[in-house]
Amino acid sequence: MKLTLAAVQELTGGKLLIGTPESEISGVSTLSEAGSDDAAFLGNEKYFHDFLATRAGVVLVPPGLPQYPEGIALIEVANPSLAFNALVKHFMSVSTAWIPGIHPSAVVDPSAKLDASAVRIGAGAVIEAGACIGSGSDIGPGCVIGASAVVGECCKLHARVVVRERCRLGSHVVVQPGAVIGSDGFGFLMGANGCYEGIDQVGIVEIGDHVDIGANTTIDRARFGRTVIGEGTKIDNLVQIGHNVAIGRHCILVAQSGVAGSTQIGDYVTVAAQVGIAGHLKVGDKATIAAQAGVITHLEGGKVYWGTPASEFMQAKKQYACIRRLPELVKDVRDLKKAAEGQNPSKS
Amino acid sequence: MKLTLAAVQELTGGKLLIGTPESEISGVSTLSEAGSDDAAFLGNEKYFHDFLATRAGVVLVPPGLPQYPEGIALIEVANPSLAFNALVKHFMSVSTAWIPGIHPSAVVDPSAKLDASAVRIGAGAVIEAGACIGSGSDIGPGCVIGASAVVGECCKLHARVVVRERCRLGSHVVVQPGAVIGSDGFGFLMGANGCYEGIDQVGIVEIGDHVDIGANTTIDRARFGRTVIGEGTKIDNLVQIGHNVAIGRHCILVAQSGVAGSTQIGDYVTVAAQVGIAGHLKVGDKATIAAQAGVITHLEGGKVYWGTPASEFMQAKKQYACIRRLPELVKDVRDLKKAAEGQNPSKS
Amino acid sequence: MKLTLAAVQELTGGKLLIGTPESEISGVSTLSEAGSDDAAFLGNEKYFHDFLATRAGVVLVPPGLPQYPEGIALIEVANPSLAFNALVKHFMSVSTAWIPGIHPSAVVDPSAKLDASAVRIGAGAVIEAGACIGSGSDIGPGCVIGASAVVGECCKLHARVVVRERCRLGSHVVVQPGAVIGSDGFGFLMGANGCYEGIDQVGIVEIGDHVDIGANTTIDRARFGRTVIGEGTKIDNLVQIGHNVAIGRHCILVAQSGVAGSTQIGDYVTVAAQVGIAGHLKVGDKATIAAQAGVITHLEGGKVYWGTPASEFMQAKKQYACIRRLPELVKDVRDLKKAAEGQNPSKS
Repeated sequence: MKLTLAAVQELTGGKLLIGTPESEISGVSTLSEAGSDDAAFLGNEKYFHDFLATRAGVVLVPPGLPQYPEGIALIEVANPSLAFNALVKHFMSVSTAWIPGIHPSAVVDPSAKLDASAVRIGAGAVIEAGACIGSGSDIGPGCVIGASAVVGECCKLHARVVVRERCRLGSHVVVQPGAVIGSDGFGFLMGANGCYEGIDQVGIVEIGDHVDIGANTTIDRARFGRTVIGEGTKIDNLVQIGHNVAIGRHCILVAQSGVAGSTQIGDYVTVAAQVGIAGHLKVGDKATIAAQAGVITHLEGGKVYWGTPASEFMQAKKQYACIRRLPELVKDVRDLKKAAEGQNPSKS
Repeated sequence: MKLTLAAVQELTGGKLLIGTPESEISGVSTLSEAGSDDAAFLGNEKYFHDFLATRAGVVLVPPGLPQYPEGIALIEVANPSLAFNALVKHFMSVSTAWIPGIHPSAVVDPSAKLDASAVRIGAGAVIEAGACIGSGSDIGPGCVIGASAVVGECCKLHARVVVRERCRLGSHVVVQPGAVIGSDGFGFLMGANGCYEGIDQVGIVEIGDHVDIGANTTIDRARFGRTVIGEGTKIDNLVQIGHNVAIGRHCILVAQSGVAGSTQIGDYVTVAAQVGIAGHLKVGDKATIAAQAGVITHLEGGKVYWGTPASEFMQAKKQYACIRRLPELVKDVRDLKKAAEGQNPSKS
Repeated sequence: MKLTLAAVQELTGGKLLIGTPESEISGVSTLSEAGSDDAAFLGNEKYFHDFLATRAGVVLVPPGLPQYPEGIALIEVANPSLAFNALVKHFMSVSTAWIPGIHPSAVVDPSAKLDASAVRIGAGAVIEAGACIGSGSDIGPGCVIGASAVVGECCKLHARVVVRERCRLGSHVVVQPGAVIGSDGFGFLMGANGCYEGIDQVGIVEIGDHVDIGANTTIDRARFGRTVIGEGTKIDNLVQIGHNVAIGRHCILVAQSGVAGSTQIGDYVTVAAQVGIAGHLKVGDKATIAAQAGVITHLEGGKVYWGTPASEFMQAKKQYACIRRLPELVKDVRDLKKAAEGQNPSKS
């Protein structure tokens, strides 16, 4: 399992800048924790100080570094983080094998469609009537797959995921523990008796191929029709997706963000952490929304936004800078008023 | 299952503006996805463009529209969203029947009080000692109902809900998957040894009739006494309710909001998404708090609030408008200062 | 189980100001709900009005009160909240006994390490291969403890907690229902084909002794190495901790806060509710971050911060005060401009 630096060079497509090709490493670690048997990487300039002090056996570095630590082997690569992942995969390739089968404690309805020799159903999982589990999929312990729900091929549902009735997951979907897919949308109408009446939520959630969904994230089913998560989109933990939302392909939604009902988000959109997007809005392709923003208008694609209410990033940044100087501004205006009153005593 | 437009008119209490009473529809959909067999509705002017381009078999519309799509049947109703719900209910009325019974994999303590012929307990659910489940209630797969907890009549707990010991739910309560009711309140005191000591949380949560609780929402038990959710209140996903909070009747709390310990919220209060309300505060009846607001003072009832710290809506709106113009204001003040210095060179 | 006021005095280390030592109480309650058999306490001046109107059998009060309710027994203590907790413990000491054993419906892998006579494993819990459960620990119904995970001694995991593979909990750790420990970190790289590729997250989560973790909170495993929660730290509900975060000892993180990847937080740090802390930052010991703040820079220890972007508390408070007066300021500047134009007509 050990790798020579020559082998590391080959695996990562890099160039050995400093060090002997025959030296060996046996694992991976961070710059600050690595010993002489470990590879590490410099992926963010914030860690430059750790880099200069590292005792790693080799460091994967980007081109154009101004300074090196003394006596440390270095391999230059275009993208150190990506290259390092290849090493991680190498050292982790002895992980536990995937063995198909249905755990005796799982409860699988006789009408469920699955090939017991090609799927794994964990302990205590519940597969309800008419649900369909694609080959190669792994349903973790304690998951509940509702009636007539569909899980595609090669999906990985970690422990205690809930997919409610009729919802559909594509193939190669990964869901972290505790996520809920297909909860009822939040819709009520005030009745004449002063009580809210629930609006039936009879639609579904449809999730594309290669989507990832974070731990304890919630995605509501549509009122009717579909709540849609496009192919390749990645959703972090504790995110809330409202009913009838449509999210495009290859988007990123970071932790604790929320998207309210019926909003449409394009492709390649990035939504940073703790962002809120109001309902019935459109966000264009390749828009980026910075953390904690509050979006209450349509957003054109291809731009960066920030603030509450969200505006274009440079504008929001200027506003925040002005806010920092507000106490000074207030004092200036007070002085100007005093001076003006001195000049025009009759006006005051 | 098909409906003529005459039947739709009757079901919705509407008036056929355009179209033939004998035409039939067989389902419901959105304005943009509907075909000639589907009914759709126009409930929000943001969808007016979709309305003009729809190919629906009939559209439920509000009174007073300035323009119609050509050749599309229209039924005028007072509230299109409410009227549409009646159609949804009609087409969904063939849903799966509710069959009472205790799943063989469920674990029901012998001391639990329930009528096995009148409740449904799902696969893998756990009902602990002394818990009481009312008739007509449906406890989903994987739910855990703690010792001496009470679930009223005709409740629907979806999969994997936790109700901890001694907490009490009224009747007709609906809980989405993953919600936690009765977790310990968050209370610690710093000890002389520099370690936090937990304050025992021995109270309960008490939930009124007709309350809805969202997916993965958490409601903490009281330190002592009760955390209370009033009758008819509707709580969305991922909401946090702290210990000893008292929420009134017929309130709305939208996704990812949080209410800190011991705060009291009146009746008919609306709390929009991602709002935070600090502890030990009072919010009056019929107050409305707009999204992402941060409430740190008592709020009088009957008014609308926004911003951090939250103030009255029009005031907050003016403040946000001013913030947008801040860079310009800073420039104006700089110019005024320069001009003043030019006039009073001896003062500078 | 009843206590005389003399006994209450002794239990709390207090001084009977008003009342007869022989009077008895039989329970605890709030100032507003207590009857003549209950003890209550005054821990926050916001409840002074309730104090003056209380009908409690005795009230624990802090020194130096300006006014008393008539005819109510009072015991003065240094810290009423802490003292009251001693009474709560007394009256709750008849709670249900802890009986070790493995519930027949639990699924415990034969290779798991635990002493069945010294632990309790709840109904439907799943203990995977090689997992280790320390003596005195209580694993609630529906919990899933992943392969080779370690739970220390005397831990209390409430219902439906997930601890993923290889993660490690210290001793005396308390985890509320639905929390997820060890979900994959959120890391993706954009591939040349326009699709995100997941970065393997092969590290673990390591949790120190005496840590508390809230309901439905999520803590991501490290990309490699460890995500660390230091000894004695208390985390509330719905909190998100990103991969490779390191949180020090005896910190407080209140509900719905989030800490992004690789950020390092010192000891005795307090993070109030709904705070967001960006990734790759350092927060010094004993820093306090007020609610809803957005932290995007390193923060020095020992200070209080607020706002988005977070700055020192007094500065942020001044800024917020100025924002409230912005509309007035805009008007002042408009007036000054008009006056200046009147004086210098040639310039306009």
